[in-house]
Amino acid sequence: MKPSIPKGTRDFSPSEMVRRNFIFNTIKKVYERYGFVQIETPAMENLSTLEGKYGEEGDKLLFRILNSGEVVQDSKSKGENLKISDLAEKGLRYDLTVPFARYVVMHQNEISFPFKRYQMQPVWRADRPQKGRYREFYQCDADVIGSTSLISEAEFLLIIQEVFSSLQIDVAIKINNRKILAGIAEVIGHADKIIDITVAIDKLDKIGEQKVKEELLAKGLSPDAVNKMQPLFESRGDFETKLNFLKTFLAESSIGLKGIEETENVISYLNAFGKQLKNLELDITLARGLNYYTGSIFEVKVNDSRSTFSGSVLGGGRYDDLTGIFGLPNVSGVGISFGIDRIYDVMLEMNLFDQLKLSETTSQVLLANFGREEEQFSLKILNELRQAGINAEIFPEYSAKMKKQMSYADSKKIPFVVLIGKDEMQSGSLTIKDMATGQQEKLTLSKIISKLSK
Amino acid sequence: MKPSIPKGTRDFSPSEMVRRNFIFNTIKKVYERYGFVQIETPAMENLSTLEGKYGEEGDKLLFRILNSGEVVQDSKSKGENLKISDLAEKGLRYDLTVPFARYVVMHQNEISFPFKRYQMQPVWRADRPQKGRYREFYQCDADVIGSTSLISEAEFLLIIQEVFSSLQIDVAIKINNRKILAGIAEVIGHADKIIDITVAIDKLDKIGEQKVKEELLAKGLSPDAVNKMQPLFESRGDFETKLNFLKTFLAESSIGLKGIEETENVISYLNAFGKQLKNLELDITLARGLNYYTGSIFEVKVNDSRSTFSGSVLGGGRYDDLTGIFGLPNVSGVGISFGIDRIYDVMLEMNLFDQLKLSETTSQVLLANFGREEEQFSLKILNELRQAGINAEIFPEYSAKMKKQMSYADSKKIPFVVLIGKDEMQSGSLTIKDMATGQQEKLTLSKIISKLSK
Repeated sequence: MKPSIPKGTRDFSPSEMVRRNFIFNTIKKVYERYGFVQIETPAMENLSTLEGKYGEEGDKLLFRILNSGEVVQDSKSKGENLKISDLAEKGLRYDLTVPFARYVVMHQNEISFPFKRYQMQPVWRADRPQKGRYREFYQCDADVIGSTSLISEAEFLLIIQEVFSSLQIDVAIKINNRKILAGIAEVIGHADKIIDITVAIDKLDKIGEQKVKEELLAKGLSPDAVNKMQPLFESRGDFETKLNFLKTFLAESSIGLKGIEETENVISYLNAFGKQLKNLELDITLARGLNYYTGSIFEVKVNDSRSTFSGSVLGGGRYDDLTGIFGLPNVSGVGISFGIDRIYDVMLEMNLFDQLKLSETTSQVLLANFGREEEQFSLKILNELRQAGINAEIFPEYSAKMKKQMSYADSKKIPFVVLIGKDEMQSGSLTIKDMATGQQEKLTLSKIISKLSK
Repeated sequence: MKPSIPKGTRDFSPSEMVRRNFIFNTIKKVYERYGFVQIETPAMENLSTLEGKYGEEGDKLLFRILNSGEVVQDSKSKGENLKISDLAEKGLRYDLTVPFARYVVMHQNEISFPFKRYQMQPVWRADRPQKGRYREFYQCDADVIGSTSLISEAEFLLIIQEVFSSLQIDVAIKINNRKILAGIAEVIGHADKIIDITVAIDKLDKIGEQKVKEELLAKGLSPDAVNKMQPLFESRGDFETKLNFLKTFLAESSIGLKGIEETENVISYLNAFGKQLKNLELDITLARGLNYYTGSIFEVKVNDSRSTFSGSVLGGGRYDDLTGIFGLPNVSGVGISFGIDRIYDVMLEMNLFDQLKLSETTSQVLLANFGREEEQFSLKILNELRQAGINAEIFPEYSAKMKKQMSYADSKKIPFVVLIGKDEMQSGSLTIKDMATGQQEKLTLSKIISKLSK
């Protein structure tokens, strides 16, 4: 049999792990710099926790787990449809947000609010796999829950800026506010259609202005209302210009004005931090699909000529009542989620990993193995190298040709090989070869240790 | 609704994450010191990869995933039994060894052998949950594949010793060799019953000598053969004594003598490393359940009066043909697996985490928030602290009472709070409070930065 793995899933080989760990560690370090602490939740959640939280489409994409010990009986199915609820009561985590809300409710008595948590775990979606879309992928989320302070929004913008700057990816950070969208719905006379309007506008990038308008009309907006939205599609200019336009456009909507005020306050907090984010854009047509957002929303796109990727690499926003579905109402939160698999793909496309010269987490030195006696002698040396904190290994088979041993070091990107033959055993002066330059020199063990400890 | 999580699964809160990460990082560091590189495989594998690899019992404990988009039709089930194979073709990883074998076969052309890989990921088993046994738990495996050198066995013993010594847990490291067990089966005249003998002996700890003998008789061993095994149950003494006993007992079995020789060679490699492991025991009755082992086998038990845990915290051994099931025969390997959830429970019971004084990955300093003006002033300070590499945060709500802000710092184990009121804003001299001692002093920002950077 020829083994395979399920479509949409991936193995990660050692050099990929080094690169992925670099991204994870970069994000982790910034999250911790801002006072976030880590949690983890189980891969499996009860379906009652997951179902109904991601819309109808989301429910279809949940991976469900067969009840264990389940023997599918014909007695149950005879004459009636067998329901999935008879077979499965658990599912795989679909995102980190809903499990986090469930966590907060279950642990509310241990938590000191505001709770700043981060979480980096895989999620699973039975989506059709395609380039950049996987059935198992990681999310790296941070949320502040239990505070309405807009300092958190400002801090998330700084976190976004720091992470992408560390990763050397040029990005556009887009911000909008759900209250601005609600204001727009109000002034065009369709406050009741806010969800339809959000869903349609969210597709602007993908389907274009004309199709968005058609969808709005199809959803029952009057032609007049759709016309009233025209200035939005044409809104250009810098942050200030757009805000001024909105102040006029939304003058009659108190919720719209509230959205503008919140956005201005976020910027004012950024100024208090002493930070101007040149790549921050107010995007009035940014909507974000999820229904639970109520305030600021964020999205990040790659803005780099070396990348062809047009999707978003981060999303987030404020929600006023995420834990309400689990029985803890009126807890406001705000969060972001880095799409690290997409970030990885973008960095690969842009050759950033080569430029970053990531150090492989591999041995710094390989001891070549010349024979039984040399091997015995070398193990003591090997032990001393490791005691000195140096990652080191011996080629375990002395029957292997030197060429094979050298190519092993090469393929594992081990920078130095120490050669210990009869001469070296007698003199105590060991031959060390620099695999990059090919140069060899003879050094005592203590000199080798200090050379490799640098 | 009151949310819950599936039985046998757990949430990990921030302080648990700090402790778990400490264990993971300890193992990771030692693995890397010995030249191992990391891989990861998907949580989901095809059932064809998993089924039949863990015995009948294991197959029952696999978590199976409903085919996505599966609508269970009555047409299919009418008049006939619905089979699990109609509903599920994927399952959750049951251990890390079989996915690793699958990985090696699929990636054989990219791998430079011997391949030294480590892997730290969760596995899932639909076992009955009980104390110390979970349905989702982590394994931390390392294997060397593609070499028969017994240096690897010696190195794994050193790795085990180093990890448990770093974790400050006293353990007994037990070693045996499947060839010794095969030799025993041979000399008692039941070479054909090697698997039954292994399975029975494996239970010695749990069910005792008498029941093991009963099981052997029940499996068809003659009373005479069982009597011949008696010296095994009575074997006492140090490593040397036991080896000498075996040399006599197994004198007529060439495979048995080979097992003794391998064990002696492992010890001789340890000596070449300059290491004696005082806690290493030859345990002739150690069998390990899994059928694929063919050479050395290892097991670690806690040997500490502060712990009541009697199960094993590590297992491993050599297998001559693990990848054969996936079409790549005759590749020998050897590996170990740390049971980190059990290690965690043991360390908790022994109060080791308190003794280790692990530093929480939390903010080093909280800026208290006195009001709108103070907040604006503080954000600049906060930014400078973070720029200096200090993990720091501000309490985001100035409306919160000082008592609440202080108890937030306490519960998050933040060691310092900086208080910035009108006085401090004017003088630039900030009040910093040591939360452990309660002492306050006034310092400039640069003095605070150097104090916290220590």
